[in-house]
Amino acid sequence: MSQARIKGILTPNLVPLDRNGNIAEDELRRYVEWLVQKGVSGLYPNGSTGEFTRFSPEERREIIRIVASQVNGRVPVLAGAAEATVRDTLAACAAYAEMGCTAAAICAPYYFKLSQDSVGEYFAELARHTELDIVLYNIPQFANEISLDTIERLADFPRIVGIKDSSRDFPRFLNLINRMRPRRPDFSILIGTEEIILPALLMGGDGGTIATSGIVPEVVMKLYALAESGQIEEARRIQFKLLELINVMLFGAGFPEGFRAAASLRGFVMGQSRQPLSPKEKCDLNAVRQTLHCILSEHGFVAEIEGAVGCEPLGQDGSPSEAEIQAIVAEVVRQMRTNR
Amino acid sequence: MSQARIKGILTPNLVPLDRNGNIAEDELRRYVEWLVQKGVSGLYPNGSTGEFTRFSPEERREIIRIVASQVNGRVPVLAGAAEATVRDTLAACAAYAEMGCTAAAICAPYYFKLSQDSVGEYFAELARHTELDIVLYNIPQFANEISLDTIERLADFPRIVGIKDSSRDFPRFLNLINRMRPRRPDFSILIGTEEIILPALLMGGDGGTIATSGIVPEVVMKLYALAESGQIEEARRIQFKLLELINVMLFGAGFPEGFRAAASLRGFVMGQSRQPLSPKEKCDLNAVRQTLHCILSEHGFVAEIEGAVGCEPLGQDGSPSEAEIQAIVAEVVRQMRTNR
Amino acid sequence: MSQARIKGILTPNLVPLDRNGNIAEDELRRYVEWLVQKGVSGLYPNGSTGEFTRFSPEERREIIRIVASQVNGRVPVLAGAAEATVRDTLAACAAYAEMGCTAAAICAPYYFKLSQDSVGEYFAELARHTELDIVLYNIPQFANEISLDTIERLADFPRIVGIKDSSRDFPRFLNLINRMRPRRPDFSILIGTEEIILPALLMGGDGGTIATSGIVPEVVMKLYALAESGQIEEARRIQFKLLELINVMLFGAGFPEGFRAAASLRGFVMGQSRQPLSPKEKCDLNAVRQTLHCILSEHGFVAEIEGAVGCEPLGQDGSPSEAEIQAIVAEVVRQMRTNR
Amino acid sequence: MSQARIKGILTPNLVPLDRNGNIAEDELRRYVEWLVQKGVSGLYPNGSTGEFTRFSPEERREIIRIVASQVNGRVPVLAGAAEATVRDTLAACAAYAEMGCTAAAICAPYYFKLSQDSVGEYFAELARHTELDIVLYNIPQFANEISLDTIERLADFPRIVGIKDSSRDFPRFLNLINRMRPRRPDFSILIGTEEIILPALLMGGDGGTIATSGIVPEVVMKLYALAESGQIEEARRIQFKLLELINVMLFGAGFPEGFRAAASLRGFVMGQSRQPLSPKEKCDLNAVRQTLHCILSEHGFVAEIEGAVGCEPLGQDGSPSEAEIQAIVAEVVRQMRTNR
Repeated sequence: MSQARIKGILTPNLVPLDRNGNIAEDELRRYVEWLVQKGVSGLYPNGSTGEFTRFSPEERREIIRIVASQVNGRVPVLAGAAEATVRDTLAACAAYAEMGCTAAAICAPYYFKLSQDSVGEYFAELARHTELDIVLYNIPQFANEISLDTIERLADFPRIVGIKDSSRDFPRFLNLINRMRPRRPDFSILIGTEEIILPALLMGGDGGTIATSGIVPEVVMKLYALAESGQIEEARRIQFKLLELINVMLFGAGFPEGFRAAASLRGFVMGQSRQPLSPKEKCDLNAVRQTLHCILSEHGFVAEIEGAVGCEPLGQDGSPSEAEIQAIVAEVVRQMRTNR
Repeated sequence: MSQARIKGILTPNLVPLDRNGNIAEDELRRYVEWLVQKGVSGLYPNGSTGEFTRFSPEERREIIRIVASQVNGRVPVLAGAAEATVRDTLAACAAYAEMGCTAAAICAPYYFKLSQDSVGEYFAELARHTELDIVLYNIPQFANEISLDTIERLADFPRIVGIKDSSRDFPRFLNLINRMRPRRPDFSILIGTEEIILPALLMGGDGGTIATSGIVPEVVMKLYALAESGQIEEARRIQFKLLELINVMLFGAGFPEGFRAAASLRGFVMGQSRQPLSPKEKCDLNAVRQTLHCILSEHGFVAEIEGAVGCEPLGQDGSPSEAEIQAIVAEVVRQMRTNR
Repeated sequence: MSQARIKGILTPNLVPLDRNGNIAEDELRRYVEWLVQKGVSGLYPNGSTGEFTRFSPEERREIIRIVASQVNGRVPVLAGAAEATVRDTLAACAAYAEMGCTAAAICAPYYFKLSQDSVGEYFAELARHTELDIVLYNIPQFANEISLDTIERLADFPRIVGIKDSSRDFPRFLNLINRMRPRRPDFSILIGTEEIILPALLMGGDGGTIATSGIVPEVVMKLYALAESGQIEEARRIQFKLLELINVMLFGAGFPEGFRAAASLRGFVMGQSRQPLSPKEKCDLNAVRQTLHCILSEHGFVAEIEGAVGCEPLGQDGSPSEAEIQAIVAEVVRQMRTNR
Repeated sequence: MSQARIKGILTPNLVPLDRNGNIAEDELRRYVEWLVQKGVSGLYPNGSTGEFTRFSPEERREIIRIVASQVNGRVPVLAGAAEATVRDTLAACAAYAEMGCTAAAICAPYYFKLSQDSVGEYFAELARHTELDIVLYNIPQFANEISLDTIERLADFPRIVGIKDSSRDFPRFLNLINRMRPRRPDFSILIGTEEIILPALLMGGDGGTIATSGIVPEVVMKLYALAESGQIEEARRIQFKLLELINVMLFGAGFPEGFRAAASLRGFVMGQSRQPLSPKEKCDLNAVRQTLHCILSEHGFVAEIEGAVGCEPLGQDGSPSEAEIQAIVAEVVRQMRTNR
């Protein structure tokens, strides 16, 4: 409550796996450290990009422990905390509070279709007992929707401090801002897709959990800074370029497989996905990876072949110029299209 | 081709009906005249708001004739021209060209589900033979979608000069801008919903066909002017107020019944809808109408009881102040909510 | 009311077009005559298969006139009568009563999304004033749904004498039977898809409007006769074969294009569709047509090349044997798959 | 492989919980014993009705252990085995084989949307390594669909021995039978909804996993026996009555809450659901429970108030007469409607 509104770009980080398919702790630490160094506003482990449903409850807790300890208070950590039941979710929240997380992001139950009454009661029950602030996570593509009416009712609970909306429904996002701002000025309203992050910021959103910020944090943080300082025209150019990148990463391979491929090009050993790929999909993904490699390497976004950490920023101030961004993205997309 | 890009706010006008359910020509002329006087950028008869599917082919032609002759070249007229077949649609286009319309807006065929191949061929066939420029009209809620790939292919036809997107899908709208701008700089990209008209303008859209501009043209034209001149903050406040208005008009009654009720409060005799209403719906609509009346009258947006034309603007320069707008809309919405 | 329940297999006939795209009256008469000769229980012009939305109001009336006069009372005619408004639909019903039709089949309004209250009021208004009995036509894929609750309310009107359900939702169909039988024993409950015509009959349905009965009336009427006489096992084999045929006709080409191709193979000159086809689609359709031709000709289902009426049945009693049916369909499907 | 096709009615059993929300082993054993005594063809723990997503991986294994040991080989046990990853699912299969289960039922991954390629590869990977036969579980409402093409490809793996389809899409079910029977005569094709269990049996299905068989096993097993012996008319009457029961249980409360309420009336202490209910939902559910109690008790389907096991069958031979079934169900439904 007395806490500041959660703002900025939080990165829903991927989880590197080792040869046996287990969490690669050292690589995850190196990845998180890199993101913090690149200036992201916060980390968001165990989000959809982080494939939280593909880990066991114990592994999910391990992921938060690693991320939180590596971050060590330098930026906020929003911990994905959805578990199978209210009891388990509350236990996870308690553990994450202990680890120093800022808040828990919790989607509505999935698999079963619930009434809004049930969705509301689920979060109410969490809000009554949690030891950690809660950010609602609306992602109707994957889990039950959290309707605007339900959100408005839940805003009576001080422990519910914000919402992250990944519905891609922009009229809904504007209605959300319009209904919540007068009622709870401290309520954080975040968007969950890079496709419309700039309009979300321009219309009064507080920021977003943006998966591409785990791949090109320099670019996304630049868009955010430009939007904050009202340089709309330049921000708009970056927005359109991000659109091309996300199109390739989302539609060139299954989600979040394209993100894993892209992260590997920034120098991180991501390992094999836990979701098996068909031979055709492996082939597709390889094409995507090769194309990405050829281009990003020209612009310094790719690790050197041998031993290099490889994640050095392009420009002097750590952020690429607009021209660099345009050139990079245009090249990537062009070559990807050619490859297909 | 040599023609300027279609820009600004085009009003999808309603059609007043007389006691027998026929087109009320005099009232339609008075309504169109009022809209032109209020400064809308253009007229868009036979759109969805104009209930084109509820008129016979002959009546649709009559509506365009009336609107075009009343406008008389002062502003562009975008004529809804979707008929049952390619042949009939081409004949309508020829007639509308004759009447002086600027372009035809044509949605994809509806009722049957078509492949994108068929949708593309339908428009290609129109584009090859039309005597009038064509604006594609994407409204997947009601008719077959026109996909981005299909639009891109159709842009090879010079006669296809723009798109009006009513999908409410903002990522789609941004992709549309990003794909079409480099390819066809003369291509007009319009949005079809007031819920996101400001973000659409800020991201580079050319304008929109906005149903609320048929009810409060002063307000919508002010938002447009503010957006054009970069006064984002004030434009944003109007955007949020429009959101409240549209929510009431859309969800307080069936579309476009709420719009007919609202137009009657601006002093126009709209008549009974051709879609019969149940007793309960009539009752609901009456509540909406009464509430609207009480409030709008306080601010000069409602016709005087006796003999008055009633459509005088509030402020001195013909546009309401921001405070007036806020007050009006807040009151309307508050009282509507109370009434329900 | 005193009238018998509508029963059996009604054929939603296609409309042959001439070189100019106009209704080919002589060919339509010849086609209708053939269907009556083949023993279908009734005709259903201006259904979805008959592409009613692709004709003008005048043409739709012309189609009914031709069909009704050719049938000349030998079997019932269920006339598709959906027009743009209540007034126009009532006028169509009056005309069709005059022409000797048994009842009108009317789908809910399409394009606009209506509440069930509005859908109900639309039909209530028709039922209060119609001069012809009405069969409700539920096809939620294309038009507004008519919910079970709405149907139950509408059953208070004696003029509403049945429902034709094309939703493909079989639990819904069973609920329909279970709710309507006790309430209105005279109410006809028809299914609108050949995919589940046998189960619909076995569970107590009265029959169906079955598009494939316009192509292979011998086969569909045989299934119906077998089901009526309780010969389930043989009926089941035909049902599965029909499934293969409909899969090819529906998914090998757009609906109802595959049906037009198939009808041409039975010896009828169908003409070009009013919905333009892309070059690729024309090519696909040609493959479908060729394959159909090669096989059906072996079994006497295809017209002779010169002068022949060509529509002679295979067996002595005018209906093909089970083995013949199996052989035909298996061949068609196999070769179609090979061709693709 | 050499194994017989899985047939009949398998009961997707609920899981009783104690006061602390933990699995009530004794009550679960008593419930399973009762079902076996009532003659169900098999048990299906950890299905959707069994709320498998609301238990931890350890608890899911515990549930199978209890059910399998209580059943002790008397009837087949189909064990729901979907876990977060291929590795975990394979481990579960190995454990369930050890416990004596007949096969594992596995739905496609949920939450993330997968391509059919990925869905296929997921099951292929399981099929290559599993120590237990697999029944595919298609439930597109909750998890990724398993398309017919994917099923046909997967049928190459001998370990994949059947499919349970809960899609409610009957045309799909018929296509499934038609495509799989010639290819894999040993492949079991089960339906997952009581709404269309009779048509599924009549058209050649092998049986079903039927949730109402956990509430009124006498009734469902009678329908099955009638269908098997070709007594369609009587079976049809039971089918329609089941339809009414399922409508009340599904729509009077959230799924599977209505089933828990109904089971408690057969004398089992089910405990509180793990999904919290709002005060309004508790109230609704109480009304449903009270109504069920009043009626079922008249017919001997409800446990005595004190100490009674209460699950005695009505008739002498352990199955109710048709008249009894009709009376019971009619009463329940009528009173439920009155209560609402």
